Amino acid sequence: MKAVYDKAHWQRHPKTELDGGQLVTPYESPERAEYVKSSVTESGIAQWLDPKDFGLAAITRTHDAAYIDFLTTCWQQWQDTGKAGEAIPAVWPGRRMQQVVPTDIDGQLGYYSFAAESSISDGTWEAAYASCQVALTAAEQVGHGEHAFGLCRPPGHHAAFDYFGGYCFINNAAVCAQYLLDQGDQKIAILDVDFHHGNGTQDIFYRRADVHFFSLHGDPLLVFPHFSGYENEIGAGPGEGANHNWVYGPGTTFAQWQVGLNEALQLIQAGGFDRLIISLGVDTFEHDPISFFKLTTDDYLSVGAAIASVQLPTLFLLEGGYAVEAIGVNVAKVLIGFEQQP
Amino acid sequence: MKAVYDKAHWQRHPKTELDGGQLVTPYESPERAEYVKSSVTESGIAQWLDPKDFGLAAITRTHDAAYIDFLTTCWQQWQDTGKAGEAIPAVWPGRRMQQVVPTDIDGQLGYYSFAAESSISDGTWEAAYASCQVALTAAEQVGHGEHAFGLCRPPGHHAAFDYFGGYCFINNAAVCAQYLLDQGDQKIAILDVDFHHGNGTQDIFYRRADVHFFSLHGDPLLVFPHFSGYENEIGAGPGEGANHNWVYGPGTTFAQWQVGLNEALQLIQAGGFDRLIISLGVDTFEHDPISFFKLTTDDYLSVGAAIASVQLPTLFLLEGGYAVEAIGVNVAKVLIGFEQQP
Ligand SMILES: [Zn+2]
Ligand SMILES: [Zn+2]
Repeated sequence: MKAVYDKAHWQRHPKTELDGGQLVTPYESPERAEYVKSSVTESGIAQWLDPKDFGLAAITRTHDAAYIDFLTTCWQQWQDTGKAGEAIPAVWPGRRMQQVVPTDIDGQLGYYSFAAESSISDGTWEAAYASCQVALTAAEQVGHGEHAFGLCRPPGHHAAFDYFGGYCFINNAAVCAQYLLDQGDQKIAILDVDFHHGNGTQDIFYRRADVHFFSLHGDPLLVFPHFSGYENEIGAGPGEGANHNWVYGPGTTFAQWQVGLNEALQLIQAGGFDRLIISLGVDTFEHDPISFFKLTTDDYLSVGAAIASVQLPTLFLLEGGYAVEAIGVNVAKVLIGFEQQP
Repeated sequence: MKAVYDKAHWQRHPKTELDGGQLVTPYESPERAEYVKSSVTESGIAQWLDPKDFGLAAITRTHDAAYIDFLTTCWQQWQDTGKAGEAIPAVWPGRRMQQVVPTDIDGQLGYYSFAAESSISDGTWEAAYASCQVALTAAEQVGHGEHAFGLCRPPGHHAAFDYFGGYCFINNAAVCAQYLLDQGDQKIAILDVDFHHGNGTQDIFYRRADVHFFSLHGDPLLVFPHFSGYENEIGAGPGEGANHNWVYGPGTTFAQWQVGLNEALQLIQAGGFDRLIISLGVDTFEHDPISFFKLTTDDYLSVGAAIASVQLPTLFLLEGGYAVEAIGVNVAKVLIGFEQQP
């Protein structure tokens, strides 16, 4: 299949992540993307394409334009105030407070975020923009009926209409779904197999019927993003019934997780979708440092094969996965399993 | 006047404050309270009383009982997970997310907060509880028609019905207002002269007519708490018209600030209140390290005298102020100015 990568992801290289009350080296490291690049290349299934530039307009079709403007200026604004660290939100609109965009950069950071682990630093915007163009370049192939893989870094599925968090700034999957609709598609399915709920993707399409969202993930009572991903979140308005969450607890095996996967794939197969987008996180892996599912490397072949069974033009976009060496092999296994399915 | 202090405030001694993307030594230090104790003692106007214990029930009259339960268990829960740092929220309910209380301590921290600078550590709950009992002990005196000063640390005015932040965990002023109502008062005024908006106090009484709130503060577009304190916040339901905010920009002098103070005092004088509570922050001081008003030490005498002019039994409760040596003198000046007024 076609695959897209851009070394511009290296511009995202924060030094700090707020974790356990400390500033630690970020889990979401540049090496992640390089491991995936190597393993997918070694597997021989990828034809690498150079990324194209679809411009900012493709992004603001999906995100709040003021939020995107904030992302482009945040680091400069932060530096202009003389702050010594990287940009981390420290105050946000609590319950019953006003949803107003402050002038001060501390206030803007809190308004446009829902989490504090994703420090913004030099190059964050540039890398996030490039990551989305990688996704769109792959999406263009899928629009032509191919399958494709976008090696996106930073990831996207936690980025909502107007806030960042969870290492995500631009929602690559959502931007691509909108792009495909704008190219003439009527109905898109997004299946999120990352360990964490894709709260951003859910948020963007929650009241829409043209993009259906399916997510399997760790119980948000126990894990990030905590305030989204419950099974009672089924969509609203025209989107009622178009949002589907499957919640799993600690120690979930592939056999258990596969039940939800198959339910999702059956809904997708029966749903009359034009195309399928996979938010491909492999932090479901048994040795992932921040997660609690028990999928093995071999299980990822089966994941790919199961996804292939619905026989839709499929766009794979990289999301999470933090056991850095294994992430490459596990992503490659999904793509190999997908390609091998007759 | 009667004054109350409890050395238990020393149990609040966090090592970290998230500020400018770094973990710095907290501005809200134990030394603050000691400077105030010394200066007020030296001024000769205080008769120090020992704090009494009014129990937890006085606190849960005002705060969500589940929130208070969280505060009592937070540090133990955090330690039980083996985290190395102090307890700092890192994910919270963003717009359109569910308001659900997670099981995991990271999720609970985000649910019960609106800011990340106030690390919770060993003794935080004990100090916050003691601070509120100091306030209540002073409030009892005011209930008997005296004036009194509660040397509260940690402060309270940023703590809302069900969340902490801004160095505040229990809203001492709000708990005391409710206590006075429960003792038979019909109508209480709370005047907040701290540099920052008293978002917690506003939140607690926003829909009530029995406690009116008056706050003068830095423009929240520019300063903490950013999402509360605008002049269009006038109360709601039965509380409509009972909430009053005066917003000031950088460089505000006493002469400018005094206009709002006098407007507030006129409303209080005409409002038929039984008692007056002052949220007494002195971070309006010209040399405060985190604020931008220009009040001088001598101005605080005038502040006290102006407050005395409304001739209500008055409860002063310490809130912010971070130019540590000057904080003591400036608080004492307010109390002296108040007592000297004929
Ligand atoms: Zn993930
Ligand atoms: Zn203050």
